[in-house]
Amino acid sequence: MSNVDSRLAELGVTLPTAPAPAANYVPFVIVGDLVFVSGQISMNENGLITGKVGVDLDVAAGAAAARTCAIGLLAQVKAACDGDFDRLVRVVKLTGFVNSSPDFTDQPEVVNGASDFLVDVLGDAGRHSRSAVSAGALPRDVAVEIEGIFQIR
Amino acid sequence: MSNVDSRLAELGVTLPTAPAPAANYVPFVIVGDLVFVSGQISMNENGLITGKVGVDLDVAAGAAAARTCAIGLLAQVKAACDGDFDRLVRVVKLTGFVNSSPDFTDQPEVVNGASDFLVDVLGDAGRHSRSAVSAGALPRDVAVEIEGIFQIR
Amino acid sequence: MSNVDSRLAELGVTLPTAPAPAANYVPFVIVGDLVFVSGQISMNENGLITGKVGVDLDVAAGAAAARTCAIGLLAQVKAACDGDFDRLVRVVKLTGFVNSSPDFTDQPEVVNGASDFLVDVLGDAGRHSRSAVSAGALPRDVAVEIEGIFQIR
Repeated sequence: MSNVDSRLAELGVTLPTAPAPAANYVPFVIVGDLVFVSGQISMNENGLITGKVGVDLDVAAGAAAARTCAIGLLAQVKAACDGDFDRLVRVVKLTGFVNSSPDFTDQPEVVNGASDFLVDVLGDAGRHSRSAVSAGALPRDVAVEIEGIFQIR
Repeated sequence: MSNVDSRLAELGVTLPTAPAPAANYVPFVIVGDLVFVSGQISMNENGLITGKVGVDLDVAAGAAAARTCAIGLLAQVKAACDGDFDRLVRVVKLTGFVNSSPDFTDQPEVVNGASDFLVDVLGDAGRHSRSAVSAGALPRDVAVEIEGIFQIR
Repeated sequence: MSNVDSRLAELGVTLPTAPAPAANYVPFVIVGDLVFVSGQISMNENGLITGKVGVDLDVAAGAAAARTCAIGLLAQVKAACDGDFDRLVRVVKLTGFVNSSPDFTDQPEVVNGASDFLVDVLGDAGRHSRSAVSAGALPRDVAVEIEGIFQIR
C-alpha cells in the first residue's frame, strides 16, 4: 500500500481536501479497524456532477461520475489514516446509489467506475464487496452517491 | 452519556417501547461492540407518518418525520444496552431513505432531522457517518426510513 | 448449525456454485468475524427473475424472488466458511432493495421471502436486523437485490 500516493500521481489524480459535511454528521467514523465513510457524491473541480444516468448522462459519464465518488472516499480514508495510506488494509464494502430513471438497468457498469478505480490504485487491496442499486433521487440531483467501509491498521 | 435519559426528558421526548418487528427479523443484532439496528420507519403516537416528501410533505415535515426515526433508533439502542444508556459509546452510521418523487434533491435537509436530534441528545457521541438517498418507495408509504449502526460497551 | 446442509436438502434447495462477480469487486469480504456479502440478485436455475413488484410480479412472486437472493447469500457465506456451515454464527443484517413502482408499499412482505427462508434453514441463528426499501431500479431489471452481513467463527 506504500505506493498509493505515487500511483495516484501517476494517474494524475489529486485527492481533494477531504470535505467536512456541513451538518451534524461527520465524514467518517472509526470503530476498531473499520472506517465507515459517509456517502460521497459525484463532483470534481468544476462542481457537482448532476443528472439522471440513462437520461441526462450515458453509462460512460455515469461511470466517470462514480469514479469521482471513489476519489472522495479515498480522500476521507486518507484523513482517517492521518494521511498515511500504509495504514489502509483494504476496501471492505461499497454501496453505490445511481440516480436514474425507473427503466435503467446498468447500475453495475456505472458503479464499476468506482470499483475499477479503487483496484487500479490499490491493487488487490482495492477489491471489495458491493451493492449497486438505483435511488429514486439523490441530494442536489447528483448522478451517483457511494458510501464505503474500509479496514485500516 | 449518563444524562441521556434526562436530556430526553428535557426535550419532552418519551422513547416508545422498542417495538419488535412482526416477522423473522429482529430489531437489532449485537456483534462485539457494534449494534446493527433495523430500519426504523417514521411514526409517532398518532401512527405512521406517510407520504412523499416534496409532494405530500414539505422538507420541514420530512425532517420532523426523520426525527421520529431517530427516536425509534434510540429506543432500540436503549433496549440493546439493557436500558442503560451509559453503555452507548457513539452513533457510528446512519443510512436514511427518503420517500420522494424523482425530482426531489433535499434528502440531506430531511435526514438532518435525525442527525440534529441525535447530536442534541447525545452531544459529540451523536455525530455519525451518514448516507442520505431517496428510495423509490417505502413500506406502508412512510415518509422516511433510517437504519443505524451504534457502538456500545 | 451442523444441520444446515441437511436442512437445505430437506427443503429441496441446492445452493448454486457461489458465482464470482465479473468485475473488480468480489462476492464477499471477511473482516474479523464479519462477512460482508455483495448484493445478490434474484435468479434461479432458469435465469434472472426480473420485473417490478406490484406491476410485473405480485407480492408472492416478489417474496419468491427474495428467497432466491437469500439462497445466493447462503451460497456465498458457505464459500466464506470454506464450505463448513458449522462456522456460521448468525445472520447479522440484511438490506433488501425491491424493484417497484413508486406507489408500492409492501416491501416488508417481499423481503420476508428471504427472512423466512433464513430462519427456516438456520433457526434462531437466521434472525437478523433488516431494512426493506424500494430501489428506483435494479441491475438487469431484477425484481429484488439483497446484501447481507454475517458473523462467522
